[in-house]
Amino acid sequence: MVYNREQLIGIVSGQMPAKRWKHVEGVMQTAVELARRYGADPVKADLAALLHDLAKFWPVERQEAVIRENGLNAELLDHDKQLLHAEVAAFISQRDYGVDDPEVLDAIRYHTSGRVGMTQMDKIVCLADYIEPGREFPGVERIRELAEVSLEEALLAGFDSTISFLLEKKKAIFPLTVLARNDLIAQLKKRNPES
Amino acid sequence: MVYNREQLIGIVSGQMPAKRWKHVEGVMQTAVELARRYGADPVKADLAALLHDLAKFWPVERQEAVIRENGLNAELLDHDKQLLHAEVAAFISQRDYGVDDPEVLDAIRYHTSGRVGMTQMDKIVCLADYIEPGREFPGVERIRELAEVSLEEALLAGFDSTISFLLEKKKAIFPLTVLARNDLIAQLKKRNPES
Repeated sequence: MVYNREQLIGIVSGQMPAKRWKHVEGVMQTAVELARRYGADPVKADLAALLHDLAKFWPVERQEAVIRENGLNAELLDHDKQLLHAEVAAFISQRDYGVDDPEVLDAIRYHTSGRVGMTQMDKIVCLADYIEPGREFPGVERIRELAEVSLEEALLAGFDSTISFLLEKKKAIFPLTVLARNDLIAQLKKRNPES
Repeated sequence: MVYNREQLIGIVSGQMPAKRWKHVEGVMQTAVELARRYGADPVKADLAALLHDLAKFWPVERQEAVIRENGLNAELLDHDKQLLHAEVAAFISQRDYGVDDPEVLDAIRYHTSGRVGMTQMDKIVCLADYIEPGREFPGVERIRELAEVSLEEALLAGFDSTISFLLEKKKAIFPLTVLARNDLIAQLKKRNPES
């Protein structure tokens, strides 16, 4: 790490509107709570949450350029532009801000799409992004309730709400999110075979 | 072709309960109507529809064995068992019944999952399977209405109903179906960029 937490807060909050920074603060708070509840490292959860949206308000062309020029996951360029900022944030966190913990970097990288084999930290940051106190969308209360008892059940409900939204809007569904969702179902089934 | 149509009807109907055969007759009738409406070959549509469910009532183990022993798409073995019968029917149609038209074989193979780059014939058989007169599920009337005006809009609504159903039931969603759906949206957008 080349910057301390206060410096990172200054750097990140300066790259987005105040309203979005308020969202990031909400994700930090919720990710720390979830980490405590589910036995993960709250310091890592806080750091991943702080950095997860750092590129969210960069022009799309700048995000695309970072992906293209640095040999990142080019498949993302063919999908919804909303997916780019997560990959870019993970890259910038490592290269420019000296974050080198793969657990933190992966949680940033997969916070929007999810992935097969999500780590505890991936799940925490992804779920915190759905349910931080400022979020309002149909079904969010139900996801908050589930988050009290099961990280996986809550995250599954989050993915389902995303997929339902995209169905309704006739927008493309990112295949990785479907694979992440199927994988969560398989994990839950393994844990509780009768359900 | 080593059998004529009447012989194939005898062979196929003998491998399933009467109720399922009635469904197949419905798909044949609807596929022929759709082929006439959308400028495809009704004879091919009839043949693909006649054969599409030939393995539907085979024991799952027999379907799995056909896939394993003949080097077919083994990825299917890891997904919902409902997907196997389409791959098996295409293989059996070619090997045992002498069907060699790739348009017909592909329409059989992809009638449940769909695929990226569906042909006109793929779409017709897949859609006929959703809307044949015997089908009753929430939203089928809307899909029938759409089928009067757009093959793609109707099929998209069909896929959306499948994905919604799987979301609700917390069952795995086959990624190929999501890719097929995304591809239909892209096709529709290309045709009508403002929508």
